[in-house]
Amino acid sequence: MPLYVDLNSDSGESFGRWKLGNEEELFKYITSASIACGFHAGDPSVMRRTVRLAKERGVAVGAHPGLPDLMGFGRRFMEVSPQDLENYVIYQIGALHAIARAEGMELQHVKPHGAMYNAAWTRRDYAEAIVRAIKAFDPKLILVAPYGSEMHRAAEEMGIAVAFEAFADRNYRSDGRLVPRSHPEALVRSIDEAIERAIRMVSEGRVKTVDGKDIEIRVHTICIHGDSPNAVEMAKRLRARLEEAGIRVAPLREFVRRA
Amino acid sequence: MPLYVDLNSDSGESFGRWKLGNEEELFKYITSASIACGFHAGDPSVMRRTVRLAKERGVAVGAHPGLPDLMGFGRRFMEVSPQDLENYVIYQIGALHAIARAEGMELQHVKPHGAMYNAAWTRRDYAEAIVRAIKAFDPKLILVAPYGSEMHRAAEEMGIAVAFEAFADRNYRSDGRLVPRSHPEALVRSIDEAIERAIRMVSEGRVKTVDGKDIEIRVHTICIHGDSPNAVEMAKRLRARLEEAGIRVAPLREFVRRA
Amino acid sequence: MPLYVDLNSDSGESFGRWKLGNEEELFKYITSASIACGFHAGDPSVMRRTVRLAKERGVAVGAHPGLPDLMGFGRRFMEVSPQDLENYVIYQIGALHAIARAEGMELQHVKPHGAMYNAAWTRRDYAEAIVRAIKAFDPKLILVAPYGSEMHRAAEEMGIAVAFEAFADRNYRSDGRLVPRSHPEALVRSIDEAIERAIRMVSEGRVKTVDGKDIEIRVHTICIHGDSPNAVEMAKRLRARLEEAGIRVAPLREFVRRA
Amino acid sequence: MPLYVDLNSDSGESFGRWKLGNEEELFKYITSASIACGFHAGDPSVMRRTVRLAKERGVAVGAHPGLPDLMGFGRRFMEVSPQDLENYVIYQIGALHAIARAEGMELQHVKPHGAMYNAAWTRRDYAEAIVRAIKAFDPKLILVAPYGSEMHRAAEEMGIAVAFEAFADRNYRSDGRLVPRSHPEALVRSIDEAIERAIRMVSEGRVKTVDGKDIEIRVHTICIHGDSPNAVEMAKRLRARLEEAGIRVAPLREFVRRA
Repeated sequence: MPLYVDLNSDSGESFGRWKLGNEEELFKYITSASIACGFHAGDPSVMRRTVRLAKERGVAVGAHPGLPDLMGFGRRFMEVSPQDLENYVIYQIGALHAIARAEGMELQHVKPHGAMYNAAWTRRDYAEAIVRAIKAFDPKLILVAPYGSEMHRAAEEMGIAVAFEAFADRNYRSDGRLVPRSHPEALVRSIDEAIERAIRMVSEGRVKTVDGKDIEIRVHTICIHGDSPNAVEMAKRLRARLEEAGIRVAPLREFVRRA
Repeated sequence: MPLYVDLNSDSGESFGRWKLGNEEELFKYITSASIACGFHAGDPSVMRRTVRLAKERGVAVGAHPGLPDLMGFGRRFMEVSPQDLENYVIYQIGALHAIARAEGMELQHVKPHGAMYNAAWTRRDYAEAIVRAIKAFDPKLILVAPYGSEMHRAAEEMGIAVAFEAFADRNYRSDGRLVPRSHPEALVRSIDEAIERAIRMVSEGRVKTVDGKDIEIRVHTICIHGDSPNAVEMAKRLRARLEEAGIRVAPLREFVRRA
Repeated sequence: MPLYVDLNSDSGESFGRWKLGNEEELFKYITSASIACGFHAGDPSVMRRTVRLAKERGVAVGAHPGLPDLMGFGRRFMEVSPQDLENYVIYQIGALHAIARAEGMELQHVKPHGAMYNAAWTRRDYAEAIVRAIKAFDPKLILVAPYGSEMHRAAEEMGIAVAFEAFADRNYRSDGRLVPRSHPEALVRSIDEAIERAIRMVSEGRVKTVDGKDIEIRVHTICIHGDSPNAVEMAKRLRARLEEAGIRVAPLREFVRRA
Repeated sequence: MPLYVDLNSDSGESFGRWKLGNEEELFKYITSASIACGFHAGDPSVMRRTVRLAKERGVAVGAHPGLPDLMGFGRRFMEVSPQDLENYVIYQIGALHAIARAEGMELQHVKPHGAMYNAAWTRRDYAEAIVRAIKAFDPKLILVAPYGSEMHRAAEEMGIAVAFEAFADRNYRSDGRLVPRSHPEALVRSIDEAIERAIRMVSEGRVKTVDGKDIEIRVHTICIHGDSPNAVEMAKRLRARLEEAGIRVAPLREFVRRA
C-alpha cells in the first residue's frame, strides 16, 4: 500500500487592503488550503478569491478558524470560555462553507489557527470545544491537529476523523511539542534539512528532537508556512522530493478515513 | 382560501456584554426571527442562544445580514462594491446557517438590516448583490423585502422567492417608501392605529400615505421593531387582533411559495 | 487631619447602539469616573457625552483603558507583549485626553479595566508596561490600583502616584486579592454589609477575609460597579454613610499627592 | 522670498501582521508624515514605530484620521453624523498626540484620509466637523486640504491654518477636483510628467486639467502615495528636481502661518 501525504498551507490571510502570502504560486504545489475565516485574518472577499483559486488549481479547502484578534493575527492566547470557543468555530466554519458553496466547493477539513491551535494542543477544554463545533456542523469534516495533542485525543474519543499535521521546518521537543518560536533553535533553517525531516517523518514515522532523542510522530499533512518568504520554494522542492521518494502527495480526503 | 401573515422581528441584536431586545417575551408572539449575524450586531454565542430560543418557541429563523459597522449598528449607509456586498451576505448567511444547524434548525429567510435594506430598496446594484448571495448559497431561501422595492424586482427577475414586508408603525409616502425617521411624521404613534393599519394592509392590500393618498401594498410579513420599548405589547396585541380578524399568523415557509 | 476617600465607577461603557450603566444618576454620588476608551467599550461619542456629564456634575475623569476585545468586554485574559500593552494604554489615554480637552477637562487618573487590571495585579511585566505608558504621556496622572499589587509596587518604584482602590462588595482572600467571581463567596451580597466594610477599610485600614483573617488594606478610592443593578443605591447610601462617619468624599486629586 | 513646499506621505498604514508602505526609505525624502491612527489602518505599536522613525529622520508628523472601516481601508464613503465625525477625529488626533508625546514629538498637522478627505472636499458638514475637531483639540494644528475645497473654506472661516495639498500623479478636472480613480485618465502615468506638473503647480500655481484647461491651484504640500510601488523613486526624484528648481523642501510648520 502506498504512502500518502498532504501538503497544507494557511491561506487567505490577506485582509482588506493588506496582502499576505502568495497563493497564486503556492497553490501549484500544495494539496489542501486552510483558509482564514475573518476572525484573525481574511474577509469575505479574500475568502472567495482564495476558494476560487483553490478550485482552479485543484486544491482542497478547509476552514482555518482563529481567535477574535485581528490586531494580533490570532497568535495571542486568549482565555475564552469553551462555549464561546465552540461557537466561534461553528460560525467561522459556516462562513467559509457558504463561500465555498458559492464556488461549488465542499469543505474537507478544519484546522485551528495560531493561539487556538497551540492552546488546544494541550488544553482539553479547548480541544473538546473545537471537536464539538465540528460535530455540530458536519462530523465528516477532518480535524487537522498534531499527533499526540489533546485535539488528537478528543477527536478520537468523540468520534471524528483527525489528520496529523507535522512541521518540517520546526524543531520538536522530546514531549512531541514544538520548540517555541522565542527559542533560538525553534526553526530548522535549511530547506534541505527540513525536506529530509519531512521524508523521514512520513516514511518512518520518526523525528529527531532538539535534545537529541528520536521520537515517534505520525503524519498525514505537512504544514507549509504560507507567510514565510521561501514558502513557494519549500513547497515546490518538498513536493518533488516526496514524489521522488515514492510518496503520493494528495489531499486528505483521498486517504484519511472519515468518521 | 385563508389570509396568512407572518410577524417577524430583528433579533439577536445583543453583542458581548451588551443586551438589546427581549426575545424571551417577544418570541411568544412572533413567527419568524431575523437574526443578526455579527456584522452590525450579534456574536456567535448571542446567535446560538437566539436560535435555541427560537427553536424552543417554534419561531422560524432567518439571517439578518448587516453592513460591517458595529459602531453604527449597520444603520449608516456605506458605499460598498456589489461584489463585496454579495460576499458579506454569503458570509453572514453561512455563519448563521452553521449556528442553526448546530441547534437542528434550517434557515427560512434572509432579511437585510438597516442601511443595507434601505439602500437595496432603491439601488439595483445592491439589490442584485443580495439576490446573487442568496442564490449562491441556497435559492430556496426567501428574501424579505418591501413590496415595489428593487429587491422585490431583482428577486422576481432572478428567480428567488420574495416575501413582502410592511411596517405597521411607520408612515408611508405615496411612492411606497417610508417617511424617513428624521421626519416628524415618520412614526405611527398609537399602537391601536398601527394595528388597524396592519389589518388593512393584510386584508385589503392598501395603506393610507402621509400625504393623504391610498396606495397598494402587498404584505407577507409585518416587522415588529424588537428594540422598541413597546415591542412585546405591540406583538401580543397585533397577533391577537389579526387572529380575531380571521387572519392566520404563521411563518413564511407555510405560505410563501419557494423558488 | 481628616480622612478622605474617593468613589469611582467604571463609566462610559456604552457602545454605539448599546447602553450600559446609568451615569445620569450615578454621577450625582461618585467623585471620579473611569471612562472606557474604545478598546473594551466606549466609542468617541459615548466618551464625549460621558465627559460632558462628568463636567456638569463636578466628577473628575480618568482613563479606563482595556484590552482590545470588544466582544469579551475586555474581561478575558490576553497574552499581549509588554510593548504592545504600553502602546495600547498610551493610545487610549491620549484618545480620552483629547475628548476631555474638547470639553475643557483634564485627566486625573488612569485605571486599567477588567483582565488588564487583574493581570497587572500580579504580573510585573504588565504592571510596568502600564506605568511606563503613564509616565510617557503624563507622569502627573494617578494610577488607580489595588494595595499590594504589582501595579502598586511598579508605580512606587518608577515614581508615579498611586491611589489604592478597594472593592466594598467583593470578598478578599488573606493574600489581599479578591475571591474570584467564579467562587460562590465572591460577592458581599448585602449592601449594608458592603457599606460597613467600606467604612472599616477607610477608617481602620483593615478588612476581614473570606477565610476569617483580618488583613491590612489601604484605600483611597472605592469602586462602584457601574453595570450592577443596584449601583446607584449603593453609591448614594455609601456616600451618605461615609460622610456621616466624618470621612470626606472627594476626587483623588484633592488628597493624593502627585509625582 | 523663496518658494517652499512640503512633501507628505500617508504613513503608518500597516496593521498588526500586515505591512504596507516603506517608511524606512520614504522618510529619507519626505518632510511630513501623515500617520494613520487606528480607524482605517495603523495600530498603537505601528503608530509608535512610525513616529520614532519620523523623529530619527527629522520628518514632521501629523494625524491621518480615517473612517471606522478597517476592512475597507477607510476608502468607502460612510454617512456619519457630523457630531460622530467630529468625535472620531478628536479621538484619533488624541491617540496619535499621545504616541508622539511618548517619543518626544509634537503634532504638526491633520490630514483626513481617503473617503473622509474626499467627502469633506465637497461636503460642508463633514468639513466643518473636521475643523471643529481640530479647534477643540489644538487650534495651532494645520489642516491639510485641497485648494478650493470645503475644508479650505471651513478652515479659513473658522480660523485655523490650512495647507493646500496637491497630487502630482493625479489628473485634475477643470472644477479643481481630481479625476476619479475609476476613470481611465485618473493617473498621470509617467514620473517625469508628474514631476514637471509638481514644479509648475508650486512655482506658477497652475495645472493643466484633463479637458485641456489651465486652472489656478495653490500648493503647500505634495502628496506622495506611500502605498504605490514607485513611491520611493517618485519622492527621491521629485525632491531633487524641486531643489534644483530653487524650491525649498521643508515641513509645513516652517512656512505655513499658524492660526
